[in-house]
Amino acid sequence: MQVFKGHGTENDFVIVPDLDGELDLTPALVRALCDRHAGVGGDGVLRVVRSENAPETASARPPRYRDFMTGEFFMDYRNADGSIAEMCGNGVRVFVRYLQQAGLAGDEVAVATRGGIKQVRTSGSELTVQMGEPVVCVDRPKVTPQGGQPLESLAHVEMPNPHVVVPVDSAQALAALDLTQPPTLEVPLPHGQNVEFIHRAGPRHLAMRVHERGVGETRSCGTGICAVVAAVASAESIRDGEPWTVDVPGGRTSVAWDGGSQIELTGPAVVLAEISVDDAWLAGYR
Amino acid sequence: MQVFKGHGTENDFVIVPDLDGELDLTPALVRALCDRHAGVGGDGVLRVVRSENAPETASARPPRYRDFMTGEFFMDYRNADGSIAEMCGNGVRVFVRYLQQAGLAGDEVAVATRGGIKQVRTSGSELTVQMGEPVVCVDRPKVTPQGGQPLESLAHVEMPNPHVVVPVDSAQALAALDLTQPPTLEVPLPHGQNVEFIHRAGPRHLAMRVHERGVGETRSCGTGICAVVAAVASAESIRDGEPWTVDVPGGRTSVAWDGGSQIELTGPAVVLAEISVDDAWLAGYR
Repeated sequence: MQVFKGHGTENDFVIVPDLDGELDLTPALVRALCDRHAGVGGDGVLRVVRSENAPETASARPPRYRDFMTGEFFMDYRNADGSIAEMCGNGVRVFVRYLQQAGLAGDEVAVATRGGIKQVRTSGSELTVQMGEPVVCVDRPKVTPQGGQPLESLAHVEMPNPHVVVPVDSAQALAALDLTQPPTLEVPLPHGQNVEFIHRAGPRHLAMRVHERGVGETRSCGTGICAVVAAVASAESIRDGEPWTVDVPGGRTSVAWDGGSQIELTGPAVVLAEISVDDAWLAGYR
Repeated sequence: MQVFKGHGTENDFVIVPDLDGELDLTPALVRALCDRHAGVGGDGVLRVVRSENAPETASARPPRYRDFMTGEFFMDYRNADGSIAEMCGNGVRVFVRYLQQAGLAGDEVAVATRGGIKQVRTSGSELTVQMGEPVVCVDRPKVTPQGGQPLESLAHVEMPNPHVVVPVDSAQALAALDLTQPPTLEVPLPHGQNVEFIHRAGPRHLAMRVHERGVGETRSCGTGICAVVAAVASAESIRDGEPWTVDVPGGRTSVAWDGGSQIELTGPAVVLAEISVDDAWLAGYR
């Protein structure tokens, strides 16, 4: 079995080419591939399927899947625990980088995902993804990081997954946060939340750390990066569509939003290795 | 660049074949290869060099290196942080498994390491390594796990790296330990210590969790597995050379010791993938 390893701002993936949609990608196989000690290692799997061969398009499908056929390739994203996910902002850049290196796509690509079609364009080593519309909510839950004092949040943002954006006073305060445990909310959101702590590094420049629900602190979170810009831009009534720089532990990204239906996330993507997985090892997980 | 990924009881390695000793394996390249998000991912690198081509044998070498030439292959082991290490009990099994799969070795192999020659023999999926002589010391430092009460240790064991072996009352107590922070010693050992917590699961059966100095909790630690058997066997004056079973989070191992100069560690080893690393990616780290 041939797979690839890639990452976008250190959110890393096992890329599984399966253009004909013939692979039985079981949860057990996903967990085995993503296992960082006993397997290949990754935050998730990106299965690459021609949309015409994706079962999600072949069955009578709900309205959210209606756009599949306008994206030539379907990104079948799975979390490391084997569960199915709709979308991943860093993953879709890595997915497109793979297509480009394999000669399957050019600089502009529409990718079919369970979260709808994502338009991606390329500029050198950077790729820009249209991430949909952030919904900035009026509740501002109080958030207490592990071992710390309660902090006022700036906003709760639906991307559509839930985020709470919390400013801190300095780069030192951001670095000192203990994110080994989930931050607690005075009133938790109904489906849990990702929490982004941010520090204002400059005029249009934010630094962020993120705790993802059910995962822990991660090196990067695409929807979280968009959420923090949506929160800050809304608070300051800036809707000029010009880029903001957002630094995450895994690297540098930028985000542009004009207040409309598409917030755009730009960042790097690297496919660094092609991997032949041993058949005997695989047989143990199928 | 062609590398391999393997693991022994989930202690995992990037295997770098370099039979002619021509690769400039810099600390930066080791760190990049071992990076679990931006690289291939591993606890360390095992460079495979013919002993005649290892610079360690070509230079005027200290006495500890005198045996190099009697092992055909030299295991150049590096920690994930880029530093040089003498030996790794799980790594040497994976090293030999690689040699066997590459057709470079049979069932019995002598491997040259910075810690001397290691004799390895194979039985099916298991490999047995002669790990040298454990030195069981009379001091029994008190150890306090994070958030817990001080516990009496059973022994301090030099393998020759330092270990402190601490019994707990039950499987539940072992599972409940918080090893996210280093356990503290009333009087720390001069060069720090690995701490093994053990539970007696049966007559010759131990379960263990380990906190490795400078690393954190790991899935397995070869010298630690030997240290706990040396400590328990010494305390009970059992020197019959019959096997003990030791369960670690990453799998099952066994250890035999007759009280003499070679404690023997037996466990599995798997080489699960062959990996072509992208040249452009590599160029960034060389």
